[in-house]
Amino acid sequence: MLTLEEALRRLLARAQVTGDEEVPLAAASGRVLAEPRVIAPVDVPPFANSAMDGFALRATDTPGTLRIVGEVAAGSAGLIEVSGGTAVRIMTGAPLPPGADTVVPLEEAGESEAKVTVPLTAPETYVRAAGSDTPAGTEVCLPGVLGPAAVAVLASLGCDPVRVRRRPRVALLSTGDELVDPGLSLRRGQIYDSNTAALTAAITEAGGEPQRMGRVPDTREAVENALRAGAGSHLIVTSGGVSVGQHDHVRGVLEGSGSLDFWRIAVQPGKPLAVGEIAGVTVIGLPGNPVSALVTFELFVRPMIRAMLGLSGDGRLHLQARPQELIRKDRERRAFLRVYVWREAAETLARSTGGQGSAQLRPLAEANALLVVPEGEEAADPARTYEAIILGELS
Amino acid sequence: MLTLEEALRRLLARAQVTGDEEVPLAAASGRVLAEPRVIAPVDVPPFANSAMDGFALRATDTPGTLRIVGEVAAGSAGLIEVSGGTAVRIMTGAPLPPGADTVVPLEEAGESEAKVTVPLTAPETYVRAAGSDTPAGTEVCLPGVLGPAAVAVLASLGCDPVRVRRRPRVALLSTGDELVDPGLSLRRGQIYDSNTAALTAAITEAGGEPQRMGRVPDTREAVENALRAGAGSHLIVTSGGVSVGQHDHVRGVLEGSGSLDFWRIAVQPGKPLAVGEIAGVTVIGLPGNPVSALVTFELFVRPMIRAMLGLSGDGRLHLQARPQELIRKDRERRAFLRVYVWREAAETLARSTGGQGSAQLRPLAEANALLVVPEGEEAADPARTYEAIILGELS
Repeated sequence: MLTLEEALRRLLARAQVTGDEEVPLAAASGRVLAEPRVIAPVDVPPFANSAMDGFALRATDTPGTLRIVGEVAAGSAGLIEVSGGTAVRIMTGAPLPPGADTVVPLEEAGESEAKVTVPLTAPETYVRAAGSDTPAGTEVCLPGVLGPAAVAVLASLGCDPVRVRRRPRVALLSTGDELVDPGLSLRRGQIYDSNTAALTAAITEAGGEPQRMGRVPDTREAVENALRAGAGSHLIVTSGGVSVGQHDHVRGVLEGSGSLDFWRIAVQPGKPLAVGEIAGVTVIGLPGNPVSALVTFELFVRPMIRAMLGLSGDGRLHLQARPQELIRKDRERRAFLRVYVWREAAETLARSTGGQGSAQLRPLAEANALLVVPEGEEAADPARTYEAIILGELS
Repeated sequence: MLTLEEALRRLLARAQVTGDEEVPLAAASGRVLAEPRVIAPVDVPPFANSAMDGFALRATDTPGTLRIVGEVAAGSAGLIEVSGGTAVRIMTGAPLPPGADTVVPLEEAGESEAKVTVPLTAPETYVRAAGSDTPAGTEVCLPGVLGPAAVAVLASLGCDPVRVRRRPRVALLSTGDELVDPGLSLRRGQIYDSNTAALTAAITEAGGEPQRMGRVPDTREAVENALRAGAGSHLIVTSGGVSVGQHDHVRGVLEGSGSLDFWRIAVQPGKPLAVGEIAGVTVIGLPGNPVSALVTFELFVRPMIRAMLGLSGDGRLHLQARPQELIRKDRERRAFLRVYVWREAAETLARSTGGQGSAQLRPLAEANALLVVPEGEEAADPARTYEAIILGELS
C-alpha cells in the first residue's frame, strides 16, 4: 500500500494545466485567472479627486473666508478654475479643479450665503492623487480564485472580458448493478445511487465541470467502452469497481487496455483507490462505498482538479483540533475521521459525528471536518491535537 | 452613530425567510433545505448486505471447509439459500442470502476448486444490517447549506427532487454619474464602476440571486424610480448616494418617500451606511467607495441574505490572529482592517496588505481576512490577538 503522500505525488505528476478562455467579468467570480499578474492599463484613480464632500481650494488661502464660485460633481467633465480667495463645492470622487490643491470637508467648513470659512489646511488633504491606488503599469497580483474583491480590482482597471482557466472537464461514471436513481422505486437488492449526485456536486465545488457518463453495467466490456468514451475529457473519475471482487472491472480494464499506476493506499476510509490512464487520459478510480468515495475525492480528486487549474493544495483551511473522546481507527492506515469541530476559547475541539464505517453517510454529512490521525496509532487521543481539514461552516 | 451590533440587530429584525421551491437533487448543492429535518422514507441500507467481497455462510459452520453453491452479486434479485456446510460467493453490497448470517472476506478465505476453507467467525461479521446506517422513520438532520455529503444522504434516501429555500432576489443599483462600465473607454472625470460587478459576485456567494437594476443618474427622481422598481425583489442594495453631499439621493428618497431606520454606523470603513425601506421592501444603502461597499456588504448584507435563507451568522470562520506590526486606525470606530493571515505553529499571524483607505481596493483583494479592532483603540497591537474574519484561502 502506498502512503498518501506518495500516491498524491504520483497522481499530481500527471496534472496538465488546462487551456484558457475569455469570460465576461460578470461571470468571473470563482474562476481562476489565466495570468495571475495583470499590468494596470490605466491609473487608478484616473485623475486627482476629492475623498470627501466639501470644498476644493488653495491651502495657502487657509485659514480664511472664501467666495464659493461653483460646484463640481462626480462625473463632471468641464471644470471651474480655483483662483486665490475662492473655493469650489466638490463631491466625493469629483475631479479636483485646476488651481485647487486641497479639500476641506463639509463638516469642517462654515458656510454662509455664498461664502465658506475654513480652518488651516495642509496641501493634498482629502485629495486622492491620480494613480494613488494603482499607477498605470503596475503589476497587480490577484489571488488564485477570483472573489468579489478581485472582481472589483479587475473592474477598476477596466478589464472586461477577462481570460480565465478552462474548467477541467471531469467525466464521471459509476459502476454497480445494484444502483438506482433517487426518485425511483427500489426493487429487491437495489439501493439508491448516492455517488453520482454527490461527486457531481464535489467536482463543481472543486472548480471542475462534471460530465455525467451515467451508470455502467458490471461487465468488462461496458466499463471499457465507458472509460474510452470518457477519454474526451480532461480527467475520468469512476466510483466502484476497484476492489478485489469478480465484478470490479475498472482496475481490470486499466491493467488490460490502459495502464494502472497504483491501487491500494494506506488511508481509512478509501484503501482501494486506483490511478491509471486510458487513451492518454488520467483515470481516478474511487471506491464505491459512498463515504470512501467522498473522502478520497477530497484527498485526491480535489487537489488534482486544482492542479489542472494551476492552483496548489486543497484550498481548505487546516487547523489543529483536540478530540473530546477517544476515536478508534485502523492502526495501519492514516485515518480521516468524520468530526464536528468548534472553537472554544483559543482551542479547536472535535467530536466524532457517529459511526466511522465507510458506508455510514450521515456522520459525514454532519461532520464539518476530517480529523487526520497518523499511521501507527490506534485512536485519536484526547491528550493531543491533530490536523483537521475544515470542510464546512463552524458554529 | 450606531454600534455594529445595534445596527445589525435592527437590520436583521427586518429579515423574512423566503418561500421554498423544488429543485432536482443534481442542482441542490449550495442550496438550503426548506425543512432541515428529513424523515427517512426507507431503511438505509434497505436490506442486510455484505461489507466485503468474500463468502456468505453460517457462523456455526466455522471454522471449516464449505462447499461453494453459488454467487450473489450486488444488484441480484433472486437469492440462493445457504444451508449447513455451504457458502455463497458474495460481492460488496450484495444482499445476504437467506440462511447466511456472516461473511468471511476473500483475504481470509482459502479457496480451492469448489470449496472454501474459513476461520472461526462470529455471526454478523462484515454484515451491514438493514437500516444500520439509517432506519426508516429516523429524523435526519442536515447542515444548513447542502454540500456533497448532504446531497449523498438525500440521494441514499431516494429524495429527488428536494424542497429548498428560494434564493432571495436582491435588486442591485449603483449611483454615480462618474461611473462607466469596464470594457469601455474613460472620458475625463470618469472612473470604472467596480461596485456593480463586485456586489453581483458577493450577492451570489452569499446565496442570493442578484438582479441588476443598472446605474442610476444622480437625480432624486431617477433614484426614487429605481428604488420603486427594485421593490419587486426581496431586498434592495444600493451603492453610493448615502453620504452628506448634495447628490446623495438614496438617503433623501428613503426619508421622503419611504422610511429611514438609521444611517451612520461606527465602523471603519463604511460609516455612511443607510438602512430603511420603500414600498415595504428593506433597502440597504452601502457607501460608494468600493472598499467600504464590500466591507459593509460582508458585515450587513451577507448576514441579511443568510437570515432570509433561515441561516444564522455570516457563515465565515472566525479565528484569533496576532498582527505582525502596528496597524493604525480611527480611534472612534471599530476597524475591519484588510490583512493577510497565515498559520505558523499554533498561532495565526496577520499582516496588513497595504493602505487601509476606503478607496484602496488592491489591499482588499490581496487580503484573506478582516482583522477586527475595537472602538477606543488607535491601532492593532502586535502584543495581542484580535478576531479575524476569514474571507479567502490560507496558504
